[in-house]
Amino acid sequence: MSETNAEPHIFVVLGGTGDLMHRKLLPALYRLATQGLFHEQSLILGCARNAELNDASFRTLAREALGKAGFPARDTAGNWCDQCLYYQTIGKGGPEEYRTLAARIAELEQKHNLPGNRVFYLALPPAALPSIVHGFGEAGLHHSAGWTRLIIEKPFGHDLSSAQELNRLVHERFTEPQVYRIDHYLGKETVQNLLVFRFANPIFETLWNRDRVENVQITVAEELGIEDRGGYYEQSGVLRDMVQNHLTQLLTLVAMEVPGTFQADAIRNEKVKVLNSVLPLGPEDAVFGQYTQGKVAGKHVPGYRQESRVAPDTPVPTFAALKLSVSNWRWQGVPFYLRTGKRMPRRLTQIVVTFRCPPVSIFQPTDSYLIHSNVLVITIQPEEGFDLYFEVKAPGQTITLERHSLDFHYGDVFAKLPDAYVTLLRDILVGDQTLFVRSDEVEAAWGLYRPFLEASPQPHAYEAGTWGPPAADGLLEKDGHEWFPL
Amino acid sequence: MSETNAEPHIFVVLGGTGDLMHRKLLPALYRLATQGLFHEQSLILGCARNAELNDASFRTLAREALGKAGFPARDTAGNWCDQCLYYQTIGKGGPEEYRTLAARIAELEQKHNLPGNRVFYLALPPAALPSIVHGFGEAGLHHSAGWTRLIIEKPFGHDLSSAQELNRLVHERFTEPQVYRIDHYLGKETVQNLLVFRFANPIFETLWNRDRVENVQITVAEELGIEDRGGYYEQSGVLRDMVQNHLTQLLTLVAMEVPGTFQADAIRNEKVKVLNSVLPLGPEDAVFGQYTQGKVAGKHVPGYRQESRVAPDTPVPTFAALKLSVSNWRWQGVPFYLRTGKRMPRRLTQIVVTFRCPPVSIFQPTDSYLIHSNVLVITIQPEEGFDLYFEVKAPGQTITLERHSLDFHYGDVFAKLPDAYVTLLRDILVGDQTLFVRSDEVEAAWGLYRPFLEASPQPHAYEAGTWGPPAADGLLEKDGHEWFPL
Repeated sequence: MSETNAEPHIFVVLGGTGDLMHRKLLPALYRLATQGLFHEQSLILGCARNAELNDASFRTLAREALGKAGFPARDTAGNWCDQCLYYQTIGKGGPEEYRTLAARIAELEQKHNLPGNRVFYLALPPAALPSIVHGFGEAGLHHSAGWTRLIIEKPFGHDLSSAQELNRLVHERFTEPQVYRIDHYLGKETVQNLLVFRFANPIFETLWNRDRVENVQITVAEELGIEDRGGYYEQSGVLRDMVQNHLTQLLTLVAMEVPGTFQADAIRNEKVKVLNSVLPLGPEDAVFGQYTQGKVAGKHVPGYRQESRVAPDTPVPTFAALKLSVSNWRWQGVPFYLRTGKRMPRRLTQIVVTFRCPPVSIFQPTDSYLIHSNVLVITIQPEEGFDLYFEVKAPGQTITLERHSLDFHYGDVFAKLPDAYVTLLRDILVGDQTLFVRSDEVEAAWGLYRPFLEASPQPHAYEAGTWGPPAADGLLEKDGHEWFPL
Repeated sequence: MSETNAEPHIFVVLGGTGDLMHRKLLPALYRLATQGLFHEQSLILGCARNAELNDASFRTLAREALGKAGFPARDTAGNWCDQCLYYQTIGKGGPEEYRTLAARIAELEQKHNLPGNRVFYLALPPAALPSIVHGFGEAGLHHSAGWTRLIIEKPFGHDLSSAQELNRLVHERFTEPQVYRIDHYLGKETVQNLLVFRFANPIFETLWNRDRVENVQITVAEELGIEDRGGYYEQSGVLRDMVQNHLTQLLTLVAMEVPGTFQADAIRNEKVKVLNSVLPLGPEDAVFGQYTQGKVAGKHVPGYRQESRVAPDTPVPTFAALKLSVSNWRWQGVPFYLRTGKRMPRRLTQIVVTFRCPPVSIFQPTDSYLIHSNVLVITIQPEEGFDLYFEVKAPGQTITLERHSLDFHYGDVFAKLPDAYVTLLRDILVGDQTLFVRSDEVEAAWGLYRPFLEASPQPHAYEAGTWGPPAADGLLEKDGHEWFPL
């Protein structure tokens, strides 16, 4: 949001030789540099276990990575690598290694006349977090003469108590305004588009409440299965992989009150309020599923239990449908249905807001014809856009109503959006925490799903290439609703 | 609306050899016949002054007219003419001629075993109405063994007192349910589309009030000038030609409350209520204009005073912009701006509903940027459709709002609509008065504009090919509003 130029700083990546660094962070940082948004004095210090790397060979790797990302490595991108990339070995993470790191950082800062602004990006598996925070603390790396920011990739914990423990640990050394918990699924554009849609368009905000809305459906459908991530997914399942983070983020953005300002904490306060207003979930509020073999996009695909590194009798769910009740003045009585799954017919992220029917129909009141509800469909993936379904009279002597849509699609008007990491890194550099998950928010989100995380309910089978098990339809039918056909 | 088949009847056209009969009524009646909606026993009796015509030569004329209208006259259309067309001379309209007409009708009804259902369509200049009603009354033609319906083309009167006098006269012989005052400008589809849009779509009805709407603009722009109708127009002017009928009809449809049913009188009751809620207009509420020479669609065109059969110093206005205040619970404080003119840049009929701005902007609150109002544009001519303008975030680091539209256009989904006369005649045959203007409605509409009809205010000059005189902008600027760019 801010136009402030990023201040000169050192950008330290732990996990500096990994996939995330090469595929996402380096290209995004270079992109920012070409746009003048990565201060020219700034440095990048990659840290990893590899003791055989040095600044020169690290730069060579970086050049290759930028080349693969589409930047010709021989020209300015190559020069940029030579100018601002450095490498530091960190072995098993003993105290002396963090002191060495601190000394290297101080040395580089002095050499390049930097004011002590530091980003520490943890591009490492979550298990590494506790020892790093501890090591940083011992070596005094949690503060500096300038600002110090700690970037933590998701997942943050695997349930409420582990997230609480992690937060306690992080807060021993870092204050919350220093901590940036990434949930990159929601790119900045998507979040801002949603907030602009809601709070710059009073016609919709007028309708956005229990008097006008019948139910809200949030679907995040994946066409892909587990692929080669069976080992990860067996530990995770759909709740940790998708529901606690992505769907819950969408829920908060759809349901939140208008914040007083467009500042990070004003927005995050409202998101947390939503989570705290959700009534405790019970077994009757959720349906879990696990895909069996079937056809997706015309191709035969195996079932989840046949995937590699998956137990043949695993109960881990790959699909969830949930009913959440947001018990506040705005939403009491309006069910929020969340649904996500792997191996569904196609990749699609949609928010469907179904409005209440007219109280009476003055058209053909004796006929069995019912007026369709007005429905607003906000599509986030694969193509962002809005479809507002409304009733139109079909031409002819009789009053025959048909549902059509008023629509708008970003792609018709705007060019392709920048990569999510470019905007995320930019926000980190200017200190905008809006898109990052606050400690109370991540805990509240874990807290919501505790009953299911603890109980491991048995999933219903659903055929790959379908919209989930029939029981997921039953969840809505109990309330007299149905999933909006996607 | 009703699927009821039209009952067998005799369809009498006074002015049966005129342009309206040949270009509109005959083709529409034949079209209905081919659709089985003009009962096969029914007859058409053309009446005119021409004493040399007879049934046979009248049928020949009718065949030619149907041929010109695109129906091959030799086949079934020709047979249809032979089967159901008759001709009767009516001279200057003396009492004996109406008795002769009555006798002829009785004879045809007996011959064809008709139950006495009669339509009298007055396809004649309005001046003929009083003597016809009188003659009908004297000859007993205002009632029959079946139903009798009197169809009156617009204009109905030329001001309030003349309309009252005409109504008094008509009501001496006919009851209001027998009388069908045509204002064919609003085709049935348009009216029904508007009512369906409003009353089948609660999301819009929710917004349709003084809390949410800032102002309403109704524009009926004509590209044409006076053409060869200078003689008529000098007597009429823009108020009688367009405002009292077409624009006022649109106003009532936009502003009316939801009727209890979709029946003619329920709807007309609500329309009249709107007219009766309009505050008296004063000189400050209107701007009149008269076009001078200019360019329309790239062609140089003369000014109104240079048109044929127009007085060189005529004060007759060809443009009007008006501000109406509908003082009821729904609309108090919401100005309705009406605008119409000849020789404007293009032919366009649009209703523009501008909603109120958000109470505060949480985006860049310190910036001078103001959020655009949401605007709903309902286009009626030339292409029916809806455009809902709303704010979208343009991609990029800063919050930049752009106004785009959600849109729907009938032409993208539906085939071309039937001719308005087909639906109007169909409604007459089944006795649906919804589209026809009731006596109190026509009087209320005349009453609204009385100050200007009596005072003949001086018009402002505007160049042909523009949206009217600058003073028309001033009318809105006084309220802090502006015409939505069309």
